[in-house]
Amino acid sequence: MASIFTKIVNGEIPCYKVAEDEDYLAFLDIFPLKRGHVLVIPKVEVDYIFDLDAETYAGLWHFAHNVARSLKAAIPCKRIGIAVLGMEVPHAHIHLVPLHHEGDLNFANPKLKFTTEEFIETAAKIQAAIGA
Amino acid sequence: MASIFTKIVNGEIPCYKVAEDEDYLAFLDIFPLKRGHVLVIPKVEVDYIFDLDAETYAGLWHFAHNVARSLKAAIPCKRIGIAVLGMEVPHAHIHLVPLHHEGDLNFANPKLKFTTEEFIETAAKIQAAIGA
Repeated sequence: MASIFTKIVNGEIPCYKVAEDEDYLAFLDIFPLKRGHVLVIPKVEVDYIFDLDAETYAGLWHFAHNVARSLKAAIPCKRIGIAVLGMEVPHAHIHLVPLHHEGDLNFANPKLKFTTEEFIETAAKIQAAIGA
Repeated sequence: MASIFTKIVNGEIPCYKVAEDEDYLAFLDIFPLKRGHVLVIPKVEVDYIFDLDAETYAGLWHFAHNVARSLKAAIPCKRIGIAVLGMEVPHAHIHLVPLHHEGDLNFANPKLKFTTEEFIETAAKIQAAIGA
């Protein structure tokens, strides 16, 4: 069965898209630790990030670099943190999280709630920074 | 002033080395979340991972991939988690942590204590897997 992320890639499930190219997609995590918490995925459905073929793996980190640069320009923070856990959705994904403190990158923290309008506005700000 | 990691690179401070090449170094975190918790660094001293030049950044993730593969072979776990926080030591570093559960990658968890002999044994196991 297709993963929830493959359904997002295929447009069967909507997302707040931040960036996309032929092989990769970045969109807002709807259970964010911080405003601007982004997931970066390869379009190919592979569960474990270290099982990606070398080219896709390298391209994913390159794509994440571009997203992180724009994210930092769009969302006030000290730096962008990175996490890959991957126990919940069997489709490799990188968390990019705007950090003020190390404790911000703690998945035991309560997730923030935003309205649809707030998610749309956040995604648009990051997209604009990518275009800039 | 040189970062503590640059002092490790230069051999001024010892480490439990896991892997090394001309540009990168991997060694055991001495405040580990789990047994086999490894830090992967570029030898060049750059604070923020996304400020690395494109070649060094790509090479760092490639090197981390090789270390992660060996780490998973050496240390029983479900998968290797990745974290980059970077608020404490101003020298870019990737945490690779053998995970059984998502909650294992939580820097608020108490750090484990191992004896020097245990650290040496863990590093040797990972090194052996790299050589395998």
